[in-house]
Amino acid sequence: MTRGESDEPLVRTCLVVGTGLIGTSVALALRRHGVVVHLADRDPTAARQAAELGAGTLDPPAEQVDLAVVAVSPSATAEVVSGLLAGNVAATVVDTAAVKDGVLREVAATVGPAPHFVGTHPMAGGERSGPGAARADLFEGRPWAVSSAGAEPRSLARVRTLLELCGAVPVEMAAAAHDAAVALVSHVPQVAASLVAARLAEGEDAALALTGQGLRDVTRVAASDPDLWVDILAANAEPVARILTELRQDVDAVVSALHEVAEDPEWARTSLREVLVRGNAGRARLPGKHGGRSTSYAVVPVVLADRPGELARLVVDVGAAGVNIEDIRIEHSPGQPVGLVELAVAPGAEAGLGEALAALGWVVHA
Amino acid sequence: MTRGESDEPLVRTCLVVGTGLIGTSVALALRRHGVVVHLADRDPTAARQAAELGAGTLDPPAEQVDLAVVAVSPSATAEVVSGLLAGNVAATVVDTAAVKDGVLREVAATVGPAPHFVGTHPMAGGERSGPGAARADLFEGRPWAVSSAGAEPRSLARVRTLLELCGAVPVEMAAAAHDAAVALVSHVPQVAASLVAARLAEGEDAALALTGQGLRDVTRVAASDPDLWVDILAANAEPVARILTELRQDVDAVVSALHEVAEDPEWARTSLREVLVRGNAGRARLPGKHGGRSTSYAVVPVVLADRPGELARLVVDVGAAGVNIEDIRIEHSPGQPVGLVELAVAPGAEAGLGEALAALGWVVHA
Repeated sequence: MTRGESDEPLVRTCLVVGTGLIGTSVALALRRHGVVVHLADRDPTAARQAAELGAGTLDPPAEQVDLAVVAVSPSATAEVVSGLLAGNVAATVVDTAAVKDGVLREVAATVGPAPHFVGTHPMAGGERSGPGAARADLFEGRPWAVSSAGAEPRSLARVRTLLELCGAVPVEMAAAAHDAAVALVSHVPQVAASLVAARLAEGEDAALALTGQGLRDVTRVAASDPDLWVDILAANAEPVARILTELRQDVDAVVSALHEVAEDPEWARTSLREVLVRGNAGRARLPGKHGGRSTSYAVVPVVLADRPGELARLVVDVGAAGVNIEDIRIEHSPGQPVGLVELAVAPGAEAGLGEALAALGWVVHA
Repeated sequence: MTRGESDEPLVRTCLVVGTGLIGTSVALALRRHGVVVHLADRDPTAARQAAELGAGTLDPPAEQVDLAVVAVSPSATAEVVSGLLAGNVAATVVDTAAVKDGVLREVAATVGPAPHFVGTHPMAGGERSGPGAARADLFEGRPWAVSSAGAEPRSLARVRTLLELCGAVPVEMAAAAHDAAVALVSHVPQVAASLVAARLAEGEDAALALTGQGLRDVTRVAASDPDLWVDILAANAEPVARILTELRQDVDAVVSALHEVAEDPEWARTSLREVLVRGNAGRARLPGKHGGRSTSYAVVPVVLADRPGELARLVVDVGAAGVNIEDIRIEHSPGQPVGLVELAVAPGAEAGLGEALAALGWVVHA
């Protein structure tokens, strides 16, 4: 690489195609760093909303841009990417679809080898959608998968720049491995959450009065956009079907065990336990905060009146005790104006913190 | 009721049998109100630990206690209750098992009609267990189911007193209805979380690097005690099996749709969408904070450096803006020392709060 090349900024201009949550958030992140961003969406309202949020201009680019970011639905991704490549609209094109293998194959089938295209997938989003939910820091600290096979060096460098400007953590993965991975850590969990939530659609109101935090957690992502998820699941059908088939075998095993509880309690209990223990083992493998292994924080539960200023008073008192809050959870209390805040702190800090807070009049159980 | 009866405290003395998370928490709550609490557990270490936490005395009661609270495993509950009733150990006996119908039947089969026994189930616990996790406020604001059929008035009054002293919200339900309800809102979600987590037990490390908040939420309760859950599932086998069988039909429908994506995409996508939409509908039925309908709070995301005092500074600034924080979530960011705090506030408050925080130098996207 010559000196001239390395000094030249790699991403000065960008075209974002698809101004939903992901596209608009990318645009906002790039604008923050002074990149000139052009916005396009088949829905003019969505494009205008993104522009009003300061994500860029609706004017089409007058000349080739450094980077085009495709953030349309998974089923439309390959077509849009192929069109941009064929039209030589950008020096480098990246997509952001949740599924990679099909996109890469379809692009190759349409335009042949595509060294200026890099498949990527930011692990961000959740149950909100649309440009209104976008934000410049959506990708801050989040994994962003990159499937770079066949890409030329300057395009790879532009992708590195994109991720850097977005504050994301690059995770290099081959397309097929990526798709198997997201089936496991994202797509099957989404289906499971939806299936548990679907059971509630016809449940009795009285039953729902017994709802606890566990059910809320299990079903949170069930609030996600169905159309987006139809697209994702259809695009990753085989890996998702494979894991769901394994999961169904375990459902069968649990149902069989439950049917045998009266007849053969020992066998039934052993079968149930085996599944639950495997669940413990899987859960323990999740990476913790800052990418490390799962950390067991100490939890200090504190009772809180539900009125303005209480949480501030508590957090200030914790800070004054010299303790960093690693995580915080406010328990929702049905029917009573009292909440419970669980403060997660470094192991070893809980006893001193509990004493310090109790001395200040907080109801705390360390 | 005579005046003399109504003036007399109904629960002055209590025997807690089983000093795990639930029993020890009940004992701590009652001690806080001056009740004399006797502790018993088949495991002397657990009983001693509860006593050391201030939950009560290890001395057996010298005379009949007002109330006995049975908080042993579901499979041992009926036997312990029957023994206490037969021995006339307490004026009133309650249990706390997660499943009610079987316990009531077994007690009736052993001791006949039992007007001094009331079946109950506090909706509290989660993935922690043992006396060390106990706290006096565990039941504060939580639903506590009561199946009171056949109980005499003074025993019912003692149960009301128990729940009041624990700060719990009584939910009266017949035993069979209770068991169907907890199968739906607790037991099936637990199985689903364990089955999703079980898939991760053998997943590649690289795949887990793509873990997001959705997976963390779906699998949180998969960390629960397998032995306790074997007992609960076995005791509620029929309702859980019935709902799991429905869930399995939906898994089958999803897998069939995924297999047909290439052949019959329209039918496949319609099938997938139908399941996801039912999931949306079920999720929307969950009661919100303070027992009301689910409220859609406005979310204000704020970027936070991961160092002591930052959260305190933020919460104080929010309070100074006159806005009450309804809920708070700290996003775990793999690999970077920057966190994202999502503040849930009353709809309509987000714009003003966003401006106020931005003016104070916070990176915020309202």
